[in-house]
Amino acid sequence: MQKVEHIGIAVSNLETSIELFEKLLNTACYKKEQVDSENVTTAFFKKGDTKIELLEGIGDENAISKFIAKKGEGIHHIAFEVADIEKEMDRLASEGFQLLNTVPKPGADNKLVCFLHPKSTNSVLIELCQEIN
Amino acid sequence: MQKVEHIGIAVSNLETSIELFEKLLNTACYKKEQVDSENVTTAFFKKGDTKIELLEGIGDENAISKFIAKKGEGIHHIAFEVADIEKEMDRLASEGFQLLNTVPKPGADNKLVCFLHPKSTNSVLIELCQEIN
Repeated sequence: MQKVEHIGIAVSNLETSIELFEKLLNTACYKKEQVDSENVTTAFFKKGDTKIELLEGIGDENAISKFIAKKGEGIHHIAFEVADIEKEMDRLASEGFQLLNTVPKPGADNKLVCFLHPKSTNSVLIELCQEIN
Repeated sequence: MQKVEHIGIAVSNLETSIELFEKLLNTACYKKEQVDSENVTTAFFKKGDTKIELLEGIGDENAISKFIAKKGEGIHHIAFEVADIEKEMDRLASEGFQLLNTVPKPGADNKLVCFLHPKSTNSVLIELCQEIN
């Protein structure tokens, strides 16, 4: 793991939250992206070397809508950039962490991603992400 | 706000979680610090330009123990580094954000800090922090 690539925040209304975070972070949202495979729409902000990703679910059958229904809006995950996602998945599995997917899958922002089960990480949802070249 | 200075994670047992996060992040905890004013003990890890701060409450009368009693372990706050905390507090108050303290207070890791009420920030607890010179 090299750095915190982004922090994901679950929101109910992306447009309202974009306005709020533009004021909070004092910077403009630089990208919006729909991720069809996850049924979410995302919006990105940059602060220093790290991004803030807002996520709104599309419909009910997606991780974000389910998270909000259970816990309300708030911080959803921390994503770490890795140089070689398969190697890092192997390292973490051998350390006893539970991977939520067995092979990396396409995520937002041109990344291959893998999530770790929060049960194995102090209830913190961790994402690994590697830039697709 | 300049960058994400650290991400705070509420844990029940600091020693157990230090071991877990050393494996997860593949890096050693570089500092432990008790913050008497907040009744918490903290442990820090560094990844790239950002720190991960684990927080365990001392006794019951502290923000971390109350958070865990209500929501369980997990991500507690995001801290942004600011160059001039009073100026940033003024800017955020004028934008309608609710500050949890009216003057900056001493925090962990040689910082002056101020928290924003999560009701005004999409249920995300935000900390501003400025290095004490």
